[in-house]
Amino acid sequence: MVLARVLGPVVATIKHPAFAGHTLLLCQPIDERGRDVGTDFIAVDHAQAGKGDTVLALREGNSARQALRQKMAPIRSFIAAVVDHVDVEKP
Amino acid sequence: MVLARVLGPVVATIKHPAFAGHTLLLCQPIDERGRDVGTDFIAVDHAQAGKGDTVLALREGNSARQALRQKMAPIRSFIAAVVDHVDVEKP
Amino acid sequence: MVLARVLGPVVATIKHPAFAGHTLLLCQPIDERGRDVGTDFIAVDHAQAGKGDTVLALREGNSARQALRQKMAPIRSFIAAVVDHVDVEKP
Amino acid sequence: MVLARVLGPVVATIKHPAFAGHTLLLCQPIDERGRDVGTDFIAVDHAQAGKGDTVLALREGNSARQALRQKMAPIRSFIAAVVDHVDVEKP
Amino acid sequence: MVLARVLGPVVATIKHPAFAGHTLLLCQPIDERGRDVGTDFIAVDHAQAGKGDTVLALREGNSARQALRQKMAPIRSFIAAVVDHVDVEKP
Repeated sequence: MVLARVLGPVVATIKHPAFAGHTLLLCQPIDERGRDVGTDFIAVDHAQAGKGDTVLALREGNSARQALRQKMAPIRSFIAAVVDHVDVEKP
Repeated sequence: MVLARVLGPVVATIKHPAFAGHTLLLCQPIDERGRDVGTDFIAVDHAQAGKGDTVLALREGNSARQALRQKMAPIRSFIAAVVDHVDVEKP
Repeated sequence: MVLARVLGPVVATIKHPAFAGHTLLLCQPIDERGRDVGTDFIAVDHAQAGKGDTVLALREGNSARQALRQKMAPIRSFIAAVVDHVDVEKP
Repeated sequence: MVLARVLGPVVATIKHPAFAGHTLLLCQPIDERGRDVGTDFIAVDHAQAGKGDTVLALREGNSARQALRQKMAPIRSFIAAVVDHVDVEKP
Repeated sequence: MVLARVLGPVVATIKHPAFAGHTLLLCQPIDERGRDVGTDFIAVDHAQAGKGDTVLALREGNSARQALRQKMAPIRSFIAAVVDHVDVEKP
């Protein structure tokens, strides 16, 4: 479960049928100050997230399948929440 | 299973229902001397941890679901213990 | 779920029988601008991908087994889609 | 499955009941020459390992649960063997 | 699923019984040109691999257990194939 910023949608014509009807968003992991950390990943949206939103993303297949109620889907990452703010002071 | 320091709570209004009633804490992985290593992650609290605490965090969905007794929840990371001290001398 | 560019096929004579009949492609993870990030991995092709294609790759065994309908196969990574474009502007 | 050196025990009073009766050891991943690589992790001991030992550690929940015969335990990492030596010459 | 080069065997006297009868090999992940990338890991051999061989390694418990037909074994990584060559030109 990581903080990420939505970069934008990924468009694919040839794809596994499990992705039909899902929005695929490219996400950039960020730290508590909004700085980029690590590399992009693609997640299925489950929180009506849009470009620029800070989100809570999960990268685990069983979680994704349960959240999306698709028991057999080959989906690993999804967006579980849009984050309002993080209450952190780091020295 | 890693050592981490709790940075503070993450506040999200739009979220997956499985997170309702859980405290989401942003955590910074640390080494045996308390130095930051690697990037932040978000965990569900299961040990009454507070800001600044050193904790033992698990990042595996099956463990999180079993610890929280939510068989179907899309939750991957949780805080399993508050650490008192680590008995280590590193040359 | 990550963006990757297909580098080319991997040829192995001595291999686990589960790989028979599958194309193994070496993939380079990339970011939203097509720059290399992280290290190569090998994936089973499931989208008729070819050398140089940008693809959406999954690296999770349960997803791979479900997508390939091989419930017991020791396969972890596969290519789920050929990506047409990514709608992202990063400042 | 990685090589690691045991740094020492982790002491936690407030913890998930699944950890009761288990020794938690802080481990440092090492390479074939004993040099530190990557960051510390915490593992449940299953090989009577002590401070300074070179061990084979597994970081996968299903393996840990099966080795410890605790089907539902939220445990991810454990020490599976004490390593005598590694037969490697690296140029 | 990654490319790796076999460094050599790991010898352990005190070990979990699931490892009895298996050869444990220390492996170095490599890229498409044979250069070292990332850190060593230990894998159970399933392809008669020897020191210096280029192999296809899997690091996922369910795959390892299915390939080795040990449903309950605490084994995560194994060698699935000896690679003959990789058909890649990288500019």
